[in-house]
Amino acid sequence: MQTVFYVSDGTAITAEVFGHALLSQFPIEFDQHTYPFIETEEKAKYVTQKINEHVAKTGQKPLVFHSIVSSEIRTIIESNEGYSHDFLSTFVAPLSKQLNIKAEPKSHRTHSLKIDTYDARIEAVNYALANDDGISCKDYDDADLILVGVSRSGKTPTSLYLALQFGIKTANYPFIADDMDELTLPKELKRNKHKIFGLTIDVQRLQGIRSERLANSTYASLRQCKLEIAEVEYLYRREKIPFINSTSFSVEEIATKILDKKGLKRRIF
Amino acid sequence: MQTVFYVSDGTAITAEVFGHALLSQFPIEFDQHTYPFIETEEKAKYVTQKINEHVAKTGQKPLVFHSIVSSEIRTIIESNEGYSHDFLSTFVAPLSKQLNIKAEPKSHRTHSLKIDTYDARIEAVNYALANDDGISCKDYDDADLILVGVSRSGKTPTSLYLALQFGIKTANYPFIADDMDELTLPKELKRNKHKIFGLTIDVQRLQGIRSERLANSTYASLRQCKLEIAEVEYLYRREKIPFINSTSFSVEEIATKILDKKGLKRRIF
Repeated sequence: MQTVFYVSDGTAITAEVFGHALLSQFPIEFDQHTYPFIETEEKAKYVTQKINEHVAKTGQKPLVFHSIVSSEIRTIIESNEGYSHDFLSTFVAPLSKQLNIKAEPKSHRTHSLKIDTYDARIEAVNYALANDDGISCKDYDDADLILVGVSRSGKTPTSLYLALQFGIKTANYPFIADDMDELTLPKELKRNKHKIFGLTIDVQRLQGIRSERLANSTYASLRQCKLEIAEVEYLYRREKIPFINSTSFSVEEIATKILDKKGLKRRIF
Repeated sequence: MQTVFYVSDGTAITAEVFGHALLSQFPIEFDQHTYPFIETEEKAKYVTQKINEHVAKTGQKPLVFHSIVSSEIRTIIESNEGYSHDFLSTFVAPLSKQLNIKAEPKSHRTHSLKIDTYDARIEAVNYALANDDGISCKDYDDADLILVGVSRSGKTPTSLYLALQFGIKTANYPFIADDMDELTLPKELKRNKHKIFGLTIDVQRLQGIRSERLANSTYASLRQCKLEIAEVEYLYRREKIPFINSTSFSVEEIATKILDKKGLKRRIF
């Protein structure tokens, strides 16, 4: 298997996410190793040695994806015997020319703490937790977004992702089995109707997810899943609530599609 | 202000995260606009027109960071009058040579759904929620990691981030004021001691966070914060529990430092 090393002076999350996007273009499997917080020459030498040991042992050159601000540390890393790809410098140099501004290299700035934006995200996470699953409806006036849908249609992970990744205060409200006849919107939702976004899901998938939770229950029965989905989609159409089917999408895709459709601005941290 | 456009055929999360890392090397502010899901020539023409309108209106060339798999759509985007940076092709071409494998371009693979890994993350999120804040201790045997610390030291956001980003099943357990005299580990924690990681926080910052929640309470008093932090740090040292001070770190930094110190393998999604 082809080996890949991620080396970063920070969390290495950016290098991993970006490297993963590049690797996904190739139809093979990769064995991935991550070395975060490589901030000293000593650590850089250690990683370089690890990479060279891999070459000696396997006779195979690994890919080395690195994102290092300090030129001293970068030089050490680049002395490795694998195929190095410098994620940062490749673009920073031309950008500096175009912007006509010198780069001011500071280590691991991407995911380092900025108190103001950090607070916004933590606040959004706390909001999402306090307003998860219809626990409380009294703070819907403060929401940026309110997700609705039947139980297990993907509301909670999507809410948390929107809070953590984008700082969007997302509440979520479940339509539960008892309300299914002549489904209507409760008054707290009606007042904030412009914030509502609906999730739906294929009946088979819903049944599968619910069965894992409560096998052989009415809750997980095909009949119940069908009924709930039909009622909910009817409500969305009648009330003109925008919605998507979450079945074949990842949490990132669901979250960004919702932001796109609602015209909500992403905050970038 | 310098304008930046992110254009992607997928969620644009990768382009944003990576572009943000590059921009953080420059000491200026950027006005950032994201166009996700640009999967058709029609949409590509629309974005290109938007970029060109910006040039016409401001006389300033924006940066255009794009990540587009289809060469037809990429060609349209690259015809814009700004400074284009092709995140994908810049590295895919040399990688293809080194790997001696042809790239098999498939749109937005990075954050698209793979049912097996998706389930692992959703399961981890559900686990983190069910085991948040000491609600329940009975499933600690299933945890990958158990965070401990005083109230508001950053346990919950870190747990959720570890679950969503890395699929790590993280429980968290709070040490509460009543237990502060002669703090000991409850038996559920003792049995899983190898999974425990401690958080601590500067007294001033803790007081600030708690005051926002419950101003002028004993809970938020400097004296109480001092006492709790002292007791908890004493416990960590006595029981040899590894810990970090979360005060000046972002949730990404805290999460990845913990994985690093615990030797937990990151799963990349």
